[in-house]
Amino acid sequence: MPFADILKAVVNGTEGALGALVVGVDGIPVEEYSVSGDVDLQSMTVEYSTLLKEIEKGSQAAQLGTTKEVTVIADKAMIMLRRLNDEYFMVLIIRPDGNFGKGRFLLRMSVPKLLSEF
Amino acid sequence: MPFADILKAVVNGTEGALGALVVGVDGIPVEEYSVSGDVDLQSMTVEYSTLLKEIEKGSQAAQLGTTKEVTVIADKAMIMLRRLNDEYFMVLIIRPDGNFGKGRFLLRMSVPKLLSEF
Repeated sequence: MPFADILKAVVNGTEGALGALVVGVDGIPVEEYSVSGDVDLQSMTVEYSTLLKEIEKGSQAAQLGTTKEVTVIADKAMIMLRRLNDEYFMVLIIRPDGNFGKGRFLLRMSVPKLLSEF
Repeated sequence: MPFADILKAVVNGTEGALGALVVGVDGIPVEEYSVSGDVDLQSMTVEYSTLLKEIEKGSQAAQLGTTKEVTVIADKAMIMLRRLNDEYFMVLIIRPDGNFGKGRFLLRMSVPKLLSEF
């Protein structure tokens, strides 16, 4: 299944989801699917991909091993980042009143599907 | 209820919890309760408090408002950070096989209790 279809299935299956992306650890998006123009997914992703690297450094420093998933709950959105491999991660952005648990489930389920496309 | 008792209730109520702390945004712990010597809570907390500031900057830059909660799932532990106010946050560290949802629930429930002690 192409990246775009996998992302679309995650976004459409999660109540309140605004969009999803596959992003390189350098912050450059590979594929993007969004249902709302309210949120600037790309600028948000550049910010958070930097953070992912910082978090990774923090996890290594604290001897916790590789970071698999990061969730940030802010006033205006919930952002989930899920590692795909050393080079890429997936991002899902949900409204604060959206279905956090469903989004997390679908994000996890889509990792093997995305990896099979690499 | 004193800080230590509130932290103890969260840790003992969460299956697989290793410890909990109240920490200043400068990374200096105010109170700490841990059930395991396996994890160096304080050094971990210093790492993650730096991250919280970075995440906050990222959220502001992406116009998502204030960060309320951050979760990091790494190979060897799950770490939850929950904002108390502008100066302090709470940290809960759980084993990878621990009860993530219960921990998150108890962490959230304990915020007003902790704030009433300030």
